Amino acid sequence: MFPNKKVQALVGSRVQVEMKGDKNTLEGKLESADDNLNLHLIDTFEIANGVKSRSLGSVVLRGNNIILLIPKGE
Amino acid sequence: MFPNKKVQALVGSRVQVEMKGDKNTLEGKLESADDNLNLHLIDTFEIANGVKSRSLGSVVLRGNNIILLIPKGE
Amino acid sequence: MFPNKKVQALVGSRVQVEMKGDKNTLEGKLESADDNLNLHLIDTFEIANGVKSRSLGSVVLRGNNIILLIPKGE
Amino acid sequence: MFPNKKVQALVGSRVQVEMKGDKNTLEGKLESADDNLNLHLIDTFEIANGVKSRSLGSVVLRGNNIILLIPKGE
Amino acid sequence: MFPNKKVQALVGSRVQVEMKGDKNTLEGKLESADDNLNLHLIDTFEIANGVKSRSLGSVVLRGNNIILLIPKGE
Amino acid sequence: MFPNKKVQALVGSRVQVEMKGDKNTLEGKLESADDNLNLHLIDTFEIANGVKSRSLGSVVLRGNNIILLIPKGE
Repeated sequence: MFPNKKVQALVGSRVQVEMKGDKNTLEGKLESADDNLNLHLIDTFEIANGVKSRSLGSVVLRGNNIILLIPKGE
Repeated sequence: MFPNKKVQALVGSRVQVEMKGDKNTLEGKLESADDNLNLHLIDTFEIANGVKSRSLGSVVLRGNNIILLIPKGE
Repeated sequence: MFPNKKVQALVGSRVQVEMKGDKNTLEGKLESADDNLNLHLIDTFEIANGVKSRSLGSVVLRGNNIILLIPKGE
Repeated sequence: MFPNKKVQALVGSRVQVEMKGDKNTLEGKLESADDNLNLHLIDTFEIANGVKSRSLGSVVLRGNNIILLIPKGE
Repeated sequence: MFPNKKVQALVGSRVQVEMKGDKNTLEGKLESADDNLNLHLIDTFEIANGVKSRSLGSVVLRGNNIILLIPKGE
Repeated sequence: MFPNKKVQALVGSRVQVEMKGDKNTLEGKLESADDNLNLHLIDTFEIANGVKSRSLGSVVLRGNNIILLIPKGE
């Protein structure tokens, strides 16, 4: 299963996403994803130093700025 | 609804956008958006430390430099 | 009007462009632009701390390294 | 053999991947890879200062943020 | 004339190129350029603090990492 | 000869490659290259402060993260 299909298969479950920049680790429920790995997350919050910080709600992430994505339920 | 369609659906409402770089958080009314997530915002201002700072008016944002986009009216 | 058409419509007028990197704010007259937001500016100068610094003349900017573009005459 | 075919040939074996950002060196078993060098790794852990640190399990990496990839079994 | 055609028209003359990263300002004779703004420069040297530093000879530059390009003979 | 053809013509000879990030200068024998400037190097080592440091062997480099490439035998 190609990486983008792996991500498609995660729609509906929670994922952790590390974005470019210093402190941009987010966790949310994956609402949708496309082949560029653009993501729409809901119930999203930021994670700083391993703990939840800011609650963000609905967030769209630009795929090219994603460093890595980790499924939380596996 | 794919992430770029989610963004299209936000045209006409206010969004907060975090761009690459240290201090580039912007909020404005989404005037238009394309599939690369290039955005045209109007009534835009910068946000620093959670408060409005510089007023920018009409601004075009290059999609690949967007980290994340948060709808403000949801 | 899509964001890249918005930029096309600015050809002939002055724009301010914030590029990636620490100190790359430029202002110039937009001579041409393509759909990747590659720009050709003339009569360009750098802006540092809000004031004109280095004069650059004719400059080509690579679109993917543009953070944001602000029309100066609106 | 073109670079992306070289990577395809590594599916099933362990690779070390250096991502953009300060501390993002990962090692894992390459589960899948596409022509953009998007990667799906399993049994992944972070490497800091040459030693294993955080265990990450299943991870999807965005190809454009990969600096370099080193096969571990050659 | 679109920006990439502007660059094509500079083949054979000297250009200054600012690349991503801290100290990557280069000057050389533009040997070739493509539509992605990938460049081949010859007789290239680095510029640090406004003066020539390291001589590099023949250099290929990846277009997406070019911040800006300035013609030297205009 | 376009820049990517210039790189193709270097297959079989040694090249020095400066990647994004602070300390990523590599030298190796160019085993293959594609039009995105993805590279496969063999007999690769890192260069720090002008001297060889870590030996890396076989390495795949993602083209978009290449700042510049210098042929070593010209």
